[in-house]
Amino acid sequence: MSKLLQDTVGELSKLPGIGRRTALRLAMHILKMEQQSVLDMTSSIERFRTQIRHCSQCNNLSDEEICPICADATRDRSTICVVEQVADLMSIENTHQYRGLYHVLGGVISPMQGIAPSDLKIDLLTEKIERGGIREVILAISTSVEGETTLFYIMNRLRGFTDLKVTTIARGIGFGDELEYVDELTITHALMNRREIE
Amino acid sequence: MSKLLQDTVGELSKLPGIGRRTALRLAMHILKMEQQSVLDMTSSIERFRTQIRHCSQCNNLSDEEICPICADATRDRSTICVVEQVADLMSIENTHQYRGLYHVLGGVISPMQGIAPSDLKIDLLTEKIERGGIREVILAISTSVEGETTLFYIMNRLRGFTDLKVTTIARGIGFGDELEYVDELTITHALMNRREIE
Repeated sequence: MSKLLQDTVGELSKLPGIGRRTALRLAMHILKMEQQSVLDMTSSIERFRTQIRHCSQCNNLSDEEICPICADATRDRSTICVVEQVADLMSIENTHQYRGLYHVLGGVISPMQGIAPSDLKIDLLTEKIERGGIREVILAISTSVEGETTLFYIMNRLRGFTDLKVTTIARGIGFGDELEYVDELTITHALMNRREIE
Repeated sequence: MSKLLQDTVGELSKLPGIGRRTALRLAMHILKMEQQSVLDMTSSIERFRTQIRHCSQCNNLSDEEICPICADATRDRSTICVVEQVADLMSIENTHQYRGLYHVLGGVISPMQGIAPSDLKIDLLTEKIERGGIREVILAISTSVEGETTLFYIMNRLRGFTDLKVTTIARGIGFGDELEYVDELTITHALMNRREIE
């Protein structure tokens, strides 16, 4: 087998969810692409990896020192939504319903994976709150064991701030979910937090 | 959203089987990779796309003018196995059972996709046979409509060569396949070509 092909298949199959067969299929596709399109792709990956930064205020991925959301003067600067990762921030942004700021932790506390609270950007969050002007912190963290641990850790850290409202996003049955297939914990939560129809 | 991230997600999602969500997941993985590993990956893709050649004898992908298989003096030079694409050649090589040469067509005849016989490397095959020394041509082409069309076209082109044995690979039930789920045409072929147990 060609060494050039072998190298490319080897490199591509290091990516998550891409086995050797898929890598080979991708390589064959790359071969059919215009040479310039391939160079555009590789150079955008290189620029992304070497030039991307973390926003100094919220830890979001950013091209500049401050991300477009933190730099946006029209956003509500009194509310911070805390998320695990940038993908979560993007999911919330896609709803176009939230106009506050974000704070990206960069993971969740996980003793199994050796992620301690100090590995997350929690100090950056408390420093921001200390500077004042924040009225509400929304904890939009996943309901995994690690997520819950992180949630309680952050709630404890925020206990000292009087007049700060700390909320979590609602747990319940998702739209389109069939009750039959929803897990018991979610149903229990959904029942406990039932609302009267107005 | 960061433009660097947006560009990378956009470029990655142009690849087959990779949607925006997968592209985002890959981008996040790339961010966690060592910078040097990312540059190794992109440069191997670039080298592959810009430097790879087609073997002048069999149209296989090759780093040199002649591919390692055609250059291998220990292989049986009287047998040529004709395949659609490089991936098929690799599947056969992986069995370690075939010691002859190959010929890679680079596709199958497909009027729908505008692929005419002249777009395939069929002349290169007949020229090789004309030079003499070939005893058998094995047509290992898929059983799709396009594959069968290509098979018959090549069989016709080879009709003029007397003393040349032209064969196709056996059709039948694959090992591990459950009869219940095998299509009728395959079962029909498998029944017609049944063998006496020795």
